[in-house]
Amino acid sequence: MKIPVVKRILSANDDIAAENHAALKAAGILTINLMASPGAGKTSTILATFDRLPEDVKPGVIEGDLASSIDAEKIAERGVPVTQINTGGGCHLDAPMVRSGLSHLPIEEINLLFIENVGNLVCTADFALGADLGVVVASVSEGHDKPYKYPGMFAKADAVLLNKMDLAEVFEFDMDYFRKGIEMLNPGVPFFPCSCKSGAGVQEWVDWLLAQR
Amino acid sequence: MKIPVVKRILSANDDIAAENHAALKAAGILTINLMASPGAGKTSTILATFDRLPEDVKPGVIEGDLASSIDAEKIAERGVPVTQINTGGGCHLDAPMVRSGLSHLPIEEINLLFIENVGNLVCTADFALGADLGVVVASVSEGHDKPYKYPGMFAKADAVLLNKMDLAEVFEFDMDYFRKGIEMLNPGVPFFPCSCKSGAGVQEWVDWLLAQR
Repeated sequence: MKIPVVKRILSANDDIAAENHAALKAAGILTINLMASPGAGKTSTILATFDRLPEDVKPGVIEGDLASSIDAEKIAERGVPVTQINTGGGCHLDAPMVRSGLSHLPIEEINLLFIENVGNLVCTADFALGADLGVVVASVSEGHDKPYKYPGMFAKADAVLLNKMDLAEVFEFDMDYFRKGIEMLNPGVPFFPCSCKSGAGVQEWVDWLLAQR
Repeated sequence: MKIPVVKRILSANDDIAAENHAALKAAGILTINLMASPGAGKTSTILATFDRLPEDVKPGVIEGDLASSIDAEKIAERGVPVTQINTGGGCHLDAPMVRSGLSHLPIEEINLLFIENVGNLVCTADFALGADLGVVVASVSEGHDKPYKYPGMFAKADAVLLNKMDLAEVFEFDMDYFRKGIEMLNPGVPFFPCSCKSGAGVQEWVDWLLAQR
């Protein structure tokens, strides 16, 4: 009896994700579900991306957090429309939360939407939100073994950023090992080593992102 | 109908956690459930602790990972008994997994057990395993806002380690802000800033740990 219940819940999420996606497409919005461990640099990636957008690109953000509005405030400081979703302890965003978040955004004024998911390298990969792209932000400080330990996330990604590259030497980061892990799980996935702090490599990511419109 | 089912599952986990705890106590073992984000330094903490144990302390480890046995191999290199649990994608260890892990450990030969949980700053806090102590390893590279964004984990901890202190300046880590967040959630919780790389601060943690026996 249990399996049908679980299927129904996931199917309900997928149905709402499909509705979100249709609404976002109808509004001409490219949507990114940004996933990462806590502190890998999701908000930093969003802010560094904003710095490099052409004028015709109008971003918006849905911020997912268990609690607080720390990241949403950083986005709002840039004058970008943002909605905070507090999951109240929940370990991932789901499609109904995003639907609710969308209802509070001026979607007619934006054409690029970042959904910053809860910091969680496991659970966030399992729930469709209605985004066009699922993007993972890894970071050098987490270590080069992450694709081997958290394969689900990397296997499903449409692109992988590797942030904090300015500290690759300090952390003795083995890039070949990291890339081999990603390629094994997700051959040919677009890969962007970068530093949101120094700005190195960020333009390559932004160029790729804009080409997905 | 759904809520009773969930309650029954959690209660079953708690029952098995209590059995694990009784078995561990009967064997004279102090058990730590070590929780953290991916890459914060759980395995490094375990290895740095091993380096500082008196001869009468005999450690063992249960390693929890979605996949791979990378960390278990590092433990085994030290000649310490270790059991690997692969959750197959699951985002946390639960009490039945630990029970299964215990059946593969020589528990009559050890008196200190580390259970290294899956790297997840959310879900791991919600499942009792049968440990005496729940310990969180945070790291400077994750940023000083983590207690505010992931309060559940920090609120329940019996001790908090803050690893990678050798990089506090590089990451412009605001220690006052971090500590204020922890104290707000969990007043007086033992707190150990340290660097498993340099060894600074690790002895204070080990002294506290050994005093819990």
